[in-house]
Amino acid sequence: MWKDHLLTAKQLSRGDVETVLDRAGEIAADPEAVRGRLDGRLLGLLFFEPSTRTKMSFETAAKRLGGGVVDMGSVESSSVKKGESLADTVRVIEGYADALVLRHPSQGAATMASEFVDVPIINAGDGAGHHPTQTLLDLYTIRETAGLDGLSIGIMGDLKYGRTVHSLAHALTNFDVHQHFVSPESLRLPRSVRYDLHQAGANVREHEDLSAVLPTLDVLYVTRIQRERFPDENEYHAIAGEYRIDADVLADAPEDLAIMHPLPRVDEIAPEVDETAHARYFEQAHNGVPVRMALLDLMLP
Amino acid sequence: MWKDHLLTAKQLSRGDVETVLDRAGEIAADPEAVRGRLDGRLLGLLFFEPSTRTKMSFETAAKRLGGGVVDMGSVESSSVKKGESLADTVRVIEGYADALVLRHPSQGAATMASEFVDVPIINAGDGAGHHPTQTLLDLYTIRETAGLDGLSIGIMGDLKYGRTVHSLAHALTNFDVHQHFVSPESLRLPRSVRYDLHQAGANVREHEDLSAVLPTLDVLYVTRIQRERFPDENEYHAIAGEYRIDADVLADAPEDLAIMHPLPRVDEIAPEVDETAHARYFEQAHNGVPVRMALLDLMLP
Amino acid sequence: MWKDHLLTAKQLSRGDVETVLDRAGEIAADPEAVRGRLDGRLLGLLFFEPSTRTKMSFETAAKRLGGGVVDMGSVESSSVKKGESLADTVRVIEGYADALVLRHPSQGAATMASEFVDVPIINAGDGAGHHPTQTLLDLYTIRETAGLDGLSIGIMGDLKYGRTVHSLAHALTNFDVHQHFVSPESLRLPRSVRYDLHQAGANVREHEDLSAVLPTLDVLYVTRIQRERFPDENEYHAIAGEYRIDADVLADAPEDLAIMHPLPRVDEIAPEVDETAHARYFEQAHNGVPVRMALLDLMLP
Repeated sequence: MWKDHLLTAKQLSRGDVETVLDRAGEIAADPEAVRGRLDGRLLGLLFFEPSTRTKMSFETAAKRLGGGVVDMGSVESSSVKKGESLADTVRVIEGYADALVLRHPSQGAATMASEFVDVPIINAGDGAGHHPTQTLLDLYTIRETAGLDGLSIGIMGDLKYGRTVHSLAHALTNFDVHQHFVSPESLRLPRSVRYDLHQAGANVREHEDLSAVLPTLDVLYVTRIQRERFPDENEYHAIAGEYRIDADVLADAPEDLAIMHPLPRVDEIAPEVDETAHARYFEQAHNGVPVRMALLDLMLP
Repeated sequence: MWKDHLLTAKQLSRGDVETVLDRAGEIAADPEAVRGRLDGRLLGLLFFEPSTRTKMSFETAAKRLGGGVVDMGSVESSSVKKGESLADTVRVIEGYADALVLRHPSQGAATMASEFVDVPIINAGDGAGHHPTQTLLDLYTIRETAGLDGLSIGIMGDLKYGRTVHSLAHALTNFDVHQHFVSPESLRLPRSVRYDLHQAGANVREHEDLSAVLPTLDVLYVTRIQRERFPDENEYHAIAGEYRIDADVLADAPEDLAIMHPLPRVDEIAPEVDETAHARYFEQAHNGVPVRMALLDLMLP
Repeated sequence: MWKDHLLTAKQLSRGDVETVLDRAGEIAADPEAVRGRLDGRLLGLLFFEPSTRTKMSFETAAKRLGGGVVDMGSVESSSVKKGESLADTVRVIEGYADALVLRHPSQGAATMASEFVDVPIINAGDGAGHHPTQTLLDLYTIRETAGLDGLSIGIMGDLKYGRTVHSLAHALTNFDVHQHFVSPESLRLPRSVRYDLHQAGANVREHEDLSAVLPTLDVLYVTRIQRERFPDENEYHAIAGEYRIDADVLADAPEDLAIMHPLPRVDEIAPEVDETAHARYFEQAHNGVPVRMALLDLMLP
């Protein structure tokens, strides 16, 4: 039963996803109705690497439901520095909280931790692994703006390293979606992810150039191309410039194209886009609150 | 309307100041009466540089009103490190909170941020710029101890660099106050501030020596002279010693002289002063709570 | 009256200890009954050195009682860095909170701080000094598992430097307890502690080898032997290996032996022990919550 722990987006069936998104929608429409839902409950926050946005969003969700948080703080100030194992840390902290939110640099950390505790664990990112609540808030935003069935989505930028992208692409295979992947050759989806999508029966195409496909899209999901991926600074600038969204690029976009981005952005979307009706990335970030409220509401006993 | 945002003390009319101080006084007299005022509300804390005292005071104020906080944490652990702009950060975090408290090393940061968000922003210090809630708690303390009209106040120490001093001096021009500035020549009020006070019709005199004016004062506001301002360690010690308050200095002080200090202090007020009835600096720090409670009460919808 | 401040375990009479443990037991049995006990109250957390576990446990305790916390944060981000004295810091922060929890690297810090404030101070560890709430949760766990009178307890590991051990050993002199200290010669209890226990009429024996005494024990309290104490890495490994608990060692243990550890552990208890009924160290850590709830309940006005 997925409600014991939320470890990956893959564990969620289409029905599970819809349950969460429906509940999030109800909560967004009437947050007052769930205000005391977590009265007297505490959410344990274990962030073994920084993630302001995700952490604040979970904290907000818990508090909007009337609950509280206890935060392990940074690794530098924790028992981890004294050599404590993750298994021990979670077994101690489960005594303080009614559910744990875990962010960890090692892939598989949340799954491993879930074997040691009795309270629900929510994976808030495990290295190159999973970040299911990001996927859920992405799906929620897509559903609110364009609907999930019959959707044509472009996913652009760094498709090779992006955990967010892989997870979202997989989750979209539950719905009737055309997925267009747009990236430079060097940052294509990894073969394993393409295989996985193929196995799941996804309707997928890859492109090096956005312009051909842009007019057909309902949603364009942009991700950051990281400087660190390129040995050569000039090559980085050349490529980043080609995959940047600005007013010129959007001249050919459908009027109701929704542009999303997991944030933080650096240069990949020009500030002028913020003023247009296309920009949905701040709303997307804000949607993290009702989606996480829905999860806590569904998962906590 | 100032209640949209509180960016500088200058934006407050005499009437505005009195509204805040009156409300703070009511709250201090009966804190129970406002205990549920912020039930279910969250204050976003964005401290881009450390400021324990101010942050704790805002957090206490929010919680004493029944509200909560969501804290961005240190810059080192935030998306800022990934190159996110201040405008993006505040636009994301406004989705988590009902008002934002912003501390930032750059002058003008709060004003800039206020142009991007719909929730109220309170400036908790922007570099060499403003720190209006410090000014309000200073005014509140002065009013409680000596009254604001007909007041004779000495302001002593580092008058050149002190944001706190400039802001307080300006705010006092709304009232019938004699202001005596006491400092070494090298740390005089900057010309621009003197001009500003002159334009505002302030009643101002400058002194290098405290002794002549001390017997006439109702309040002496002491600030720290920072070692870093002096190229020569000996010169620093000579000057700091001359502007230090101890029992000897206070022998000539009026019996009901109130000594204030924005804290933290280092050596500029001797510990022996703490035991006297003159010492009002801890009470001054504590007054930050009712004053900030009053602001949140007035500013939050 | 100890309820003004809790500075050392030594200040607590047998009656005081029993009052706290009894209250903790009631709270553990029915936490709902005290859920609103600290409504509207704030606990100030001043941790001048990191201690995740203790801090989270106090935070949980306050919140489970319906109260909140205001946290000074790390020393790096505080006014302490500007040269503020501890006396000033606590005098400012007492204006924000209804009680203070203080952790400080200097022995005597909590006692010193208690002379400057009117709100209750709870010592959460002062260097080589005291950590009375750890002692209380240890006593609570012992009482729950084996009872305190007629107890035979082994205390093993680093007995020379361990503040936890010294404090627990002293507290046990209030009860009818046989204490067996097991350590290498180089990490024996300090002479001053042995003298102190002798003066208190303790029933104490020292051993270099666990095997002889193990079959007689009700409780074995294990502590970490720190690598830093040994100039020679090989010597450390030899000794740490001798004082390590694993399934082989436990073959000779009484069936109902309770193994405790203040945590974090590194290697001194093998993970295989976690699965046995002997393991009580996670429960011990969790007991910090009801014990600290009991203290807050008893100490806050």
